[in-house]
Amino acid sequence: MDTRKGFHQSLEELQRDLLKMGVMVEEAIFLAVKSLAQLDETIARQVVAGDDKVNELMVEIESSCLRLLALQQPMASDLRVIGTAMKIVTDLERIGDHAVDIAKTTIRLQGEKLLKPLVDTPRMADMTKDMLRDALNSYVKKDLEIARSLAKKDDAVDALFKQIFLELEELMGADPANVHQAILLLMVCRMLERIADHATNIGEWVIYMITGVRQELNH
Amino acid sequence: MDTRKGFHQSLEELQRDLLKMGVMVEEAIFLAVKSLAQLDETIARQVVAGDDKVNELMVEIESSCLRLLALQQPMASDLRVIGTAMKIVTDLERIGDHAVDIAKTTIRLQGEKLLKPLVDTPRMADMTKDMLRDALNSYVKKDLEIARSLAKKDDAVDALFKQIFLELEELMGADPANVHQAILLLMVCRMLERIADHATNIGEWVIYMITGVRQELNH
Repeated sequence: MDTRKGFHQSLEELQRDLLKMGVMVEEAIFLAVKSLAQLDETIARQVVAGDDKVNELMVEIESSCLRLLALQQPMASDLRVIGTAMKIVTDLERIGDHAVDIAKTTIRLQGEKLLKPLVDTPRMADMTKDMLRDALNSYVKKDLEIARSLAKKDDAVDALFKQIFLELEELMGADPANVHQAILLLMVCRMLERIADHATNIGEWVIYMITGVRQELNH
Repeated sequence: MDTRKGFHQSLEELQRDLLKMGVMVEEAIFLAVKSLAQLDETIARQVVAGDDKVNELMVEIESSCLRLLALQQPMASDLRVIGTAMKIVTDLERIGDHAVDIAKTTIRLQGEKLLKPLVDTPRMADMTKDMLRDALNSYVKKDLEIARSLAKKDDAVDALFKQIFLELEELMGADPANVHQAILLLMVCRMLERIADHATNIGEWVIYMITGVRQELNH
């Protein structure tokens, strides 16, 4: 009995750590896009520096997962909860990396002015942040509906990405001087679109965790 | 004794499956970039269709990993071998997705002519394929040297990416009519660069597997 109780406490700790990591990368996305919209190098460097903590937490969570798997011989459903945690942590880490890439774009653009005020990009960032929060909620609450809702939200992000893509393409066509910055801004949106994909991945893992069946949401 | 023997046989099977998956995505990269260089839609559709098999193998490998972890209570070093397999499989799946994205670019470009013959892009693809092969060899042979060599190769890929980036930027600046295709080609190279990152990730996992210490290679 004691061992099982210890096991479930450890599982809860694991989930708390995952949520903590989720909040960290959510904050990183927000700050990275804020730094870009304001071309604020200080905020950008804060995001870059913060990624070490995200990576440390990832290593910690992975170690906990392996320890739990090896020492506790969990049953099928718990096994999926832990396996899912190992997958989610990879998606979160990649999201953190994308936030760093966005922040680095801010640093590269120091000394320039933005081609136009960023409106849609922060909106896209908000959408991906919401998706990430939903994805983690679906994991903690084991909520199939929330997990499934991510596919639709991912479509909305993809549509916005396409729209921004066309606008930037137009800016490049209009003046060669715009090309360099427009490409960088395009890459930023591409990363936000990838972040939404990662959130959708997490949703797929949660569906697998609850149902035992793997299902692709975004194809 | 029988259980341990069964365990090691299962481990070997797991590694064989991982290598098989590696060969599949290596082939997918090769075919995707070939389809692009020749604007061959048939090859491109072959890559897109082949991704299902990659995903099926991923699910199979992950299930084997979880089964091995839960049923066999492996010791620390075996634990790392299995945990590493679970991570590598994610990188391989992502590489497969990138190959599909490249193939889809070929499909989008049907009816167009290439702005210029692709020379550096296939070269970049070859470099990333070699890195992937090295990464998987380092896993199977538990070879620290090969794993560590990936960082240097990743730098070479990054350098080539920067060069192609500048060339495409120039093409866009020279003629607005080039913008659309140049962006798509840029995205392709960005994906190849990401594939190299995934190979480097695998190298990091192998270093962890051998030494028990996590170490970032490409920062």
